[in-house]
Amino acid sequence: MSSPRLNTGAPPRLAKDALRVVALGGLGEIGRNMTVFEHAGKLLIVDCGVLFPEEHQPGIDVILPDFTSIRDRLDDVVAIVLTHGHEDHIGGVPYLLRERPDIPLVGSRLTLAFITAKLTEHRIRPVTVEVTEGDQRRFGPFDCEFVAVNHSIPDGLAVAIRTAAGLVLHTGDFKMDQFPLDGRITDLRGFARLGEEGVDLFLTDSTNAEVPGFTASEGELIPAIETVFRKSPRRVIVSSFASHVHRIQQVLDAAAAHGRKVAFVGRSMVRNMGIAAELGYLKIPAGLVVDLKVLEKLPPSKVTLVCTGSQGEPMAALSRMAGGDHVIRVREGDTVLLASSLIPGNENAVYRVINGLTSLGANVVHKGNAKVHVSGHASAGELVYCYNIVKPSNVMPVHGESRHLRANADLAVKTGVDPRNVVVAENGHVVDLVDGRASVVGKVPVHNVYVDASVVGGATEASLQDRRTLAEEGVLAVVAIIDADTGQLADPPDFLARGFVHAGDSFDPVVPLIEKALARAATDGHPDSRQLEDVIARTVASWARRTYRRAPLIIPVVIDA
Amino acid sequence: MSSPRLNTGAPPRLAKDALRVVALGGLGEIGRNMTVFEHAGKLLIVDCGVLFPEEHQPGIDVILPDFTSIRDRLDDVVAIVLTHGHEDHIGGVPYLLRERPDIPLVGSRLTLAFITAKLTEHRIRPVTVEVTEGDQRRFGPFDCEFVAVNHSIPDGLAVAIRTAAGLVLHTGDFKMDQFPLDGRITDLRGFARLGEEGVDLFLTDSTNAEVPGFTASEGELIPAIETVFRKSPRRVIVSSFASHVHRIQQVLDAAAAHGRKVAFVGRSMVRNMGIAAELGYLKIPAGLVVDLKVLEKLPPSKVTLVCTGSQGEPMAALSRMAGGDHVIRVREGDTVLLASSLIPGNENAVYRVINGLTSLGANVVHKGNAKVHVSGHASAGELVYCYNIVKPSNVMPVHGESRHLRANADLAVKTGVDPRNVVVAENGHVVDLVDGRASVVGKVPVHNVYVDASVVGGATEASLQDRRTLAEEGVLAVVAIIDADTGQLADPPDFLARGFVHAGDSFDPVVPLIEKALARAATDGHPDSRQLEDVIARTVASWARRTYRRAPLIIPVVIDA
Repeated sequence: MSSPRLNTGAPPRLAKDALRVVALGGLGEIGRNMTVFEHAGKLLIVDCGVLFPEEHQPGIDVILPDFTSIRDRLDDVVAIVLTHGHEDHIGGVPYLLRERPDIPLVGSRLTLAFITAKLTEHRIRPVTVEVTEGDQRRFGPFDCEFVAVNHSIPDGLAVAIRTAAGLVLHTGDFKMDQFPLDGRITDLRGFARLGEEGVDLFLTDSTNAEVPGFTASEGELIPAIETVFRKSPRRVIVSSFASHVHRIQQVLDAAAAHGRKVAFVGRSMVRNMGIAAELGYLKIPAGLVVDLKVLEKLPPSKVTLVCTGSQGEPMAALSRMAGGDHVIRVREGDTVLLASSLIPGNENAVYRVINGLTSLGANVVHKGNAKVHVSGHASAGELVYCYNIVKPSNVMPVHGESRHLRANADLAVKTGVDPRNVVVAENGHVVDLVDGRASVVGKVPVHNVYVDASVVGGATEASLQDRRTLAEEGVLAVVAIIDADTGQLADPPDFLARGFVHAGDSFDPVVPLIEKALARAATDGHPDSRQLEDVIARTVASWARRTYRRAPLIIPVVIDA
Repeated sequence: MSSPRLNTGAPPRLAKDALRVVALGGLGEIGRNMTVFEHAGKLLIVDCGVLFPEEHQPGIDVILPDFTSIRDRLDDVVAIVLTHGHEDHIGGVPYLLRERPDIPLVGSRLTLAFITAKLTEHRIRPVTVEVTEGDQRRFGPFDCEFVAVNHSIPDGLAVAIRTAAGLVLHTGDFKMDQFPLDGRITDLRGFARLGEEGVDLFLTDSTNAEVPGFTASEGELIPAIETVFRKSPRRVIVSSFASHVHRIQQVLDAAAAHGRKVAFVGRSMVRNMGIAAELGYLKIPAGLVVDLKVLEKLPPSKVTLVCTGSQGEPMAALSRMAGGDHVIRVREGDTVLLASSLIPGNENAVYRVINGLTSLGANVVHKGNAKVHVSGHASAGELVYCYNIVKPSNVMPVHGESRHLRANADLAVKTGVDPRNVVVAENGHVVDLVDGRASVVGKVPVHNVYVDASVVGGATEASLQDRRTLAEEGVLAVVAIIDADTGQLADPPDFLARGFVHAGDSFDPVVPLIEKALARAATDGHPDSRQLEDVIARTVASWARRTYRRAPLIIPVVIDA
């Protein structure tokens, strides 16, 4: 495989008739998918998502792709193609449109409905171009054709991009469920037709490349969901992703079949299901869905609640139910169905919820003890089908952590793609398609752009390091009143510790050390407050390390008296 | 099932000839297993382990069982029976022995060897009583019989405890591998014999009660491990638990078969494998294991490294290799085998390691892409065998989160145990076995006892809450010099923020608010510094909330001028 470590300096000029591909997100991570295509001086963006933070990024809401490399070229952007309506593909759009609101958004009806609803919350009215499978549209020098793909949200599209440089096929997220609820399968005939034409660069979803075999059909969940509704003596509470229209459809159908009514709980669930129903993607039997107030008056055996929080999000309905901190009180005999995946990293949160619900007496049915979830992504078996149908001359795995990209690349090679034409790139790597050959030619700078309480870029790696230190070690503020003439302590300093394990101890032992250090500092000239603060911080830090093997964050304050 | 919510007040006097069972750990969690049996005024403890912290417990090393309820009765403790040598069963012993060093430790040879090595690091020389399967020993009023069980560490023992109150069987951790590497299977004939005699209370390992079917045999890993050694062109680096003697044995055998040498890396790995080899639990072919220095001189295709860090522990060998921060440099073509489970909660850390190794060019083989791990715990299928063989009159599931305990209880009921005799208890619940009937009769207080940088109980729930706030929101110190006479600001206050997203902004807007608040405070009497600090903290906090929707931890400092 062509190693990205070969050439990652500043990118060279883009050759005439060549195509440049730069992923600003989605490589080396699951999330914030964003790929920028450049040709003939214009840019086409495919997807603009967010990445959700991990536990070592406390206080962060979401992480954005780094727009720096395109910021001064926003006027060259001819369109943003959105392959589907998941947060990791559309969540970054509001932040990009803040910088240029009139970039056309191109996507299917449901995708545009979801992004438009989101943009409304950001008070942005976007320019949209609705497309459907089979459509061809030209955006600047980019000739786009849209191909139906099946995923865990309806109305997903792959996009084929034709330029003078050749034909690129970007799958977006997809799987190959042969019996999807809406009958809309991934259009392999379309993939084949494009393959016949000759796909010069194939960008494919790597999420499940490590998973052998084939992703099961959504329909295979029916027995488990049926069982829940058949056996539950009291209420059925279902939690799933607020965008998983087909999963919810199965729940609604089962509820209707068992004479139960349904209420949606949670802002995003109510909003998205409203949109999906209005546009006809969700079929709601007449009278099935009722208001929560109405539902509460029915006997428990007639009740179904559909809510958010399947990932253990602390503020979501389900976590609050598990903590007994929600209007809906979970009781002995209720059945809770977590009809969703368990995204790695959320285990503790999700199991806390499951344990909370269990100890309230609920019977909790989840991925771990029943077949209540199938993935939305193509497994290895499906990916090799794609490679053999498309027979691309170059492959660039996208949408995955390093291990997923590598596994996907291995699959491509197995099907006969020349290893030198399989590009395992990283975010920011500049991949040029020149004379039918794709390779990494350079790198643009990319950093994590943190959104923290709606402040973009407010939190930095440095402030996150501070936060980790604060969390692990606590904080110790040292307030010293210094005699301006002598540069020595006017009084013993005040020590204020929080989250520091030895907060209770006396800090007297360090005072003479501070005095000594200040005396030493005074002899080497006349230090200013800033320098005195450094002296104090260093002295207290090394004392804490020696005495307690701890490194609290130290805030020195010098006040001249 | 008898609900623990029935009676959880202060426990009544223990009836004569009755047996009291109080779990101080291991119920509602995976870890810090500790069960206290009381009879005729004496206490017998089974296991004393540690619990590892979750991400919402930053800076914590381990969490101990709460010894409070037995602290004033340590002289009544006749022995601590250790079922096996895992941290979650022995890790708390050093802390308990600090309080009374001469409590006899009872266990198998390997278990005692592991705990003794650990105690040496704590400078404690324990009193030990070595036992083996079939042994009977009397400790005070407790007649103990030891039964062989198979687990993911050799030499595990279940313990049968006979008192005037009846016969109790505690499985410890176990599974029923019918073809273990050491041929030492769980002694179901022993279970059956005890069942014939009549088991009044059966305490069983719940860890895998939710997992249908049977846990696979350790031997089933041979093909995957073989493949790694057969295919790897360069070094093989294996990471596993430092206590998993049989897993390591398989690796050593495969290395020997493929003409590779082996070096152990990591303190605990070197120490434990040394012990296991010395005692004959680990069979090392002559000349196979060599010093790292020697190994480094061999060609990569002759090299095997066995190290710690399979759970992504940041300080362990493997994480440091993945970060390029270890003497052992992982290179293109190396194969890394994670021959271990992935403990829930460690996913992010482990996948960070896998991705790091992958991007260094290593081929990483792990649970997710090969059959390289089997659990050490009995699945549902094995548990029902046990229930049907033992036919206990009372059951108390142990060792599991609520969901596991509940699932295990359901299995007991399915096999015909009277639901009223199945006790799903919580840590601290007092379970009395009286006249052959077990039930919850009360509760003793139990709290999390945090060990933080070797300080026991230093960190509290309050300080952890502070740490979480510090991590999520950062800290803002406000230093105000107050005119002692007027109680008003002598100068504008100093603001020092760390980890606070708006640290860069000006804090001028809040100054007039502080002035107003101080003026108001002055009118209601003559507030002292403490009160003034509260006024300032409240004012700044509500300003930060209004202005930024943030709640940084605020440290107010008032200095009288």
